[in-house]
Amino acid sequence: MKTVTGFASATVGNVACGFDVLGFAITEPGDEVILTLHDERSSDCPVSITSIIGDGGALPLDPKKNTSSFVVLKFLEYIRTTKGIAFDGHIDLVLKKNLPLSSGMGSSAASAAAALIAANELLGSPCSKMELVHFAIEGERVACGSAHADNAAPAMLGNFILIRSYHPLDLITIKPPANLFCSLVHPHTELKTSFARSVLPKSIPLSTATQQWGNVGALVAGLLMEDYDLIGRALVDVVAEPKRAPLIPGFVEVKQAALDAGALGCSIAGSGPSVFAFSSSRQTAETVGAAMQQAFLHSKASLASDMWVSPICSEGARIVSKTP
Amino acid sequence: MKTVTGFASATVGNVACGFDVLGFAITEPGDEVILTLHDERSSDCPVSITSIIGDGGALPLDPKKNTSSFVVLKFLEYIRTTKGIAFDGHIDLVLKKNLPLSSGMGSSAASAAAALIAANELLGSPCSKMELVHFAIEGERVACGSAHADNAAPAMLGNFILIRSYHPLDLITIKPPANLFCSLVHPHTELKTSFARSVLPKSIPLSTATQQWGNVGALVAGLLMEDYDLIGRALVDVVAEPKRAPLIPGFVEVKQAALDAGALGCSIAGSGPSVFAFSSSRQTAETVGAAMQQAFLHSKASLASDMWVSPICSEGARIVSKTP
Repeated sequence: MKTVTGFASATVGNVACGFDVLGFAITEPGDEVILTLHDERSSDCPVSITSIIGDGGALPLDPKKNTSSFVVLKFLEYIRTTKGIAFDGHIDLVLKKNLPLSSGMGSSAASAAAALIAANELLGSPCSKMELVHFAIEGERVACGSAHADNAAPAMLGNFILIRSYHPLDLITIKPPANLFCSLVHPHTELKTSFARSVLPKSIPLSTATQQWGNVGALVAGLLMEDYDLIGRALVDVVAEPKRAPLIPGFVEVKQAALDAGALGCSIAGSGPSVFAFSSSRQTAETVGAAMQQAFLHSKASLASDMWVSPICSEGARIVSKTP
Repeated sequence: MKTVTGFASATVGNVACGFDVLGFAITEPGDEVILTLHDERSSDCPVSITSIIGDGGALPLDPKKNTSSFVVLKFLEYIRTTKGIAFDGHIDLVLKKNLPLSSGMGSSAASAAAALIAANELLGSPCSKMELVHFAIEGERVACGSAHADNAAPAMLGNFILIRSYHPLDLITIKPPANLFCSLVHPHTELKTSFARSVLPKSIPLSTATQQWGNVGALVAGLLMEDYDLIGRALVDVVAEPKRAPLIPGFVEVKQAALDAGALGCSIAGSGPSVFAFSSSRQTAETVGAAMQQAFLHSKASLASDMWVSPICSEGARIVSKTP
């Protein structure tokens, strides 16, 4: 029995100005998916979920409804139809969830990317990561209703990923500056992506849009020119953050605490409630993260939180172990 | 009598997706401004326009209404109030207009930048180019009613200039890839900037805005990573081009001709009617430019045109001669 364990880490979508087009991966925490290959099919569906650890029973065990197994099914269908690889065996799936659900940390994307990198390895690596990323994005549709790529793409590919276009999918990898560190703080409250999307306007003033794309261009320039000050100045979101900040108790105080502690910039991670900040050294990022946690704790809602400090992950989803 | 001649070249604003936030300078054609310093003030106003050559009598001779003299007056006021440099003499100004008016080629910005670089030299270079650029932008308000920077900033500073923010003004210089060439075609018709702005919507769907800022980020990435294919893919404007294309007779055919001839991408220069295309070699840019001219000629309006092929100008406004 061949067994492969895949890992994919937390990701932050939007990155302030880059609403729906930008995301990045950090190195930890992340989800693990352990796949075991059997020669014989043991049910109608070629993938079964053996267990899910760490979700508190929240995620579905139906392989067609769970993101991690759903994307493996999509992958099997793809290699059968486009590469002529018929799969007659069976895959048992164990999902170790280390990422909190509905946290804005790309939880579903991490499960999908970990499952896909493991499935690909299990079947002899027929696909490139760039092929796999399509299924990871499809997984987001199952998880939260829309096939957005700003978590799924960096979960699979690492780095910053800019989504130039969805149709056709055009993903640009942007390598981060060496000293860029992320402080990611997850307050102990949930915010559904679908609700966080519902507060956004359907249309925005052209002048607001212009401000936003000036900042998107500047953020990309700052990353590629390794200009930390410019990265900080460009971390401005005039579209989503003003609408979503009121949904996160203490956000205003947390952001101010991050900036006061020396962060380059601070905004909502994905659709929240997690909040991220960038700093130009690990030491500053540690100080910033601690200040953000204190601010959540001392805000009206007195929220406890978890906090991680991490560089940008350059690798993306990876295999952590395999037998034999 | 000290005389200084300043030069600033044509610029292309918007650059497809970068509406109001991006512009670049080419090396030719450009406007020249010749300033002569006299010790004695010869009128109430310290600047007089001696002559304007090449405008067909269209531009005002009143020094407070002509862009090139207006910006010199602003400059004189600035050095008096912030640097304590009192100017008691008089400046005679000759403007040699080589750029067509209302062409989308940054005509007023070139005159302003040429005048400012000459005035600064004439008075002992009290200002940096980054200071001068503020007055060049103010000149746009006189010329066309709004103080936009996407022509004025590259006319002064060269290269691609990204305007991250207007308040405060935050300009990012983006060096172009070495083999990027621009074909700029000016059809013999005029299009007022104010009219071209009036056809734009006041607000746009969030999904449209998202597409546009994905492309802005990708264009900046393409320029900085010297990825010519990416530059081409990112030259997409889903906001202004669809509204303005109908104002330029033959635009659809001209753009298609450019792409068929091997251009990376093609869009409207500023608010038009000029059209620019990018290519990854001078030879291709020549072929592309010729094809665009043919397309204008064979379109329903049978427009004759002028055409220039140029690399991106890295220098910006400069002094071309001075005496003594």
